[in-house]
Amino acid sequence: MPPTITEHEFKERCLTTPQDDEKDEMDLHVYRITRYSDGTVKLRNSNIELMDQDILYHLALGSESHDLQEMFGDVKFVCMGGTPKRMENFAHFIMDEIGYKLPAGTQLQDISAYSYRYSMYKVGPVLCVSHGMGTPSVSILMHEMIKLMFHAKCIDPIFIRIGTCGGIGVEGGTVIITEDALDGQLRNSHEFTILGETIHRPAKLDKKLARELKSLASADDPYDTIIGKTLCTNDFYEGQGRLDGAFCEFSETDKMNYLEKLRNNGVVNIEMESTIFAALTHHAGIKAAVVCVALLNRLNGDQVNAPKEVMHEWQQRPQILVSRYIRKVLAQHGQLKSLFGQQGSIKSPRRFKLVQQESQAHE
Amino acid sequence: MPPTITEHEFKERCLTTPQDDEKDEMDLHVYRITRYSDGTVKLRNSNIELMDQDILYHLALGSESHDLQEMFGDVKFVCMGGTPKRMENFAHFIMDEIGYKLPAGTQLQDISAYSYRYSMYKVGPVLCVSHGMGTPSVSILMHEMIKLMFHAKCIDPIFIRIGTCGGIGVEGGTVIITEDALDGQLRNSHEFTILGETIHRPAKLDKKLARELKSLASADDPYDTIIGKTLCTNDFYEGQGRLDGAFCEFSETDKMNYLEKLRNNGVVNIEMESTIFAALTHHAGIKAAVVCVALLNRLNGDQVNAPKEVMHEWQQRPQILVSRYIRKVLAQHGQLKSLFGQQGSIKSPRRFKLVQQESQAHE
Repeated sequence: MPPTITEHEFKERCLTTPQDDEKDEMDLHVYRITRYSDGTVKLRNSNIELMDQDILYHLALGSESHDLQEMFGDVKFVCMGGTPKRMENFAHFIMDEIGYKLPAGTQLQDISAYSYRYSMYKVGPVLCVSHGMGTPSVSILMHEMIKLMFHAKCIDPIFIRIGTCGGIGVEGGTVIITEDALDGQLRNSHEFTILGETIHRPAKLDKKLARELKSLASADDPYDTIIGKTLCTNDFYEGQGRLDGAFCEFSETDKMNYLEKLRNNGVVNIEMESTIFAALTHHAGIKAAVVCVALLNRLNGDQVNAPKEVMHEWQQRPQILVSRYIRKVLAQHGQLKSLFGQQGSIKSPRRFKLVQQESQAHE
Repeated sequence: MPPTITEHEFKERCLTTPQDDEKDEMDLHVYRITRYSDGTVKLRNSNIELMDQDILYHLALGSESHDLQEMFGDVKFVCMGGTPKRMENFAHFIMDEIGYKLPAGTQLQDISAYSYRYSMYKVGPVLCVSHGMGTPSVSILMHEMIKLMFHAKCIDPIFIRIGTCGGIGVEGGTVIITEDALDGQLRNSHEFTILGETIHRPAKLDKKLARELKSLASADDPYDTIIGKTLCTNDFYEGQGRLDGAFCEFSETDKMNYLEKLRNNGVVNIEMESTIFAALTHHAGIKAAVVCVALLNRLNGDQVNAPKEVMHEWQQRPQILVSRYIRKVLAQHGQLKSLFGQQGSIKSPRRFKLVQQESQAHE
């Protein structure tokens, strides 16, 4: 195995501005125990290397049944979101954005289809995975994705959650980058019960990555992109102070007082996955960010009822921001050009369409 | 609205044996506030009736967009399980079992397909719904299913979760009916955070229903069917004492001591949904049961590696038990005969197959 990373290498690889140097001081320790010196992912669990085979049960992959390094060794970005559909859409979107071409006669395949649990699409260096709803569902996926990064010998992968949320004092359609993920008691941590004991792990996201994402918001975007604190709950109805669940044992005044309290604590949005996503990526020394779009302003109501077309357009906004970031990083490493340089099947989209129409006419 | 149920009516409808009379004394109170006198579901949330429309967002249904009573008014059994695939399989299985016939030229449709979150199939009085993984995902579904029961004016619906689990001291393939659902601290309750406050609700399942299900296990079944306590965790790896997650900060001895402690407390299996399922059905006054099949004996290991065909057969076992129960209840109400009496499309399965083969030969 390659030797441990030096402090110099860590700074070279992970820090770019002086203020990061101080903020991330603690993280050198985490980085050292979660990376080999070549930047490939090292697990904080020595049992895995001793196993005959590691079955990534919920991904329908195995360390001996599949050549995981061959399949996933080039992955640089792991993008996650709630539904299989959204992640399939994102896979096609990012394919266009980074100019990735599939070989003739091929299409994207759901790599984890046979798990019947999560969906996974690979577009060159970008892995697009659905994580379901709520922290336990994300937890299972994170364990297996981090193990996948290890088996595949991925170098310094970056994890980004692309989600939807309720806004607090922000309009529907606003893009929100999470600064800190808070649990139901407004703690910046996630609570785990391990062998019956309760522990907390910090729900820390990468502040530099958050700033970088924010910097990619364009003045021309017809919507706001902001950074703020995110509340993570275990329920959509009572847990988020909604009046419209099957049960409601509080008044509208109680609800509004609670939402105001959240706002006074800097909370700008509520969702159901951020603390576990932050806690497990941080524990694994993986740079991570959460980018969500608000589907409504909770100070104005509980039910999500923007028209379908509007909702659809809103859900593309975090994807657009994340794609700008991925393009930027790939361009910095000279990889965007090489992807765009690939020979694709379509030389002229206009003529391609004509041929399709011709073909359809001859039934 | 119909008047409140009388104690006599409650006993008639809900209790059958003298011991239930005592055990369920407390439940008359719950039943009274969760039922109209005709047995239709009453919500513990008066806000819903005042709303213009109630959108069941994660089911892709709405109280004004859909005629929910027309669509779902006849539902008696709501069966839930983790994956869309398993519930689709169960829908086809129960269709055969209760002899339900679809009109010519129709097939089952995923009613919630456009939510991209849960899948829902309706087979006459049986609704088959996927709930995803973990308590938050189940929580969202339960709120909307309970509201659906209300809007549809369903009478005394019964909710059954059909799942998979890890066994403690029981062999893979064993069917386990949950007696009590315990959280990570072995409490028979589920913890909720509502407006920042932590509360517990009892994770009580219907003991009579559990006994009734157990009584339907056949001496001819080539596997055991048992009743015991179920541990519900928020994670599959560290949370269940597995050594093979992305992280592991305990020893094999710690793990075995923990599993032994669980066994000494009467825990026979571990899964990730039972406390919220029990707590929300109990709070809604809905009779509920959890029936799981063990995929492995956790005292022997962590990884699930039974062959696919074996796993497939095992996963049918809880479905078989639940189908015996559904058939029995329908038969008691004289409904099984009427379902079987329906005219189906296939008169002779043998000739049907021949016609199919003939047809395929003429390409």
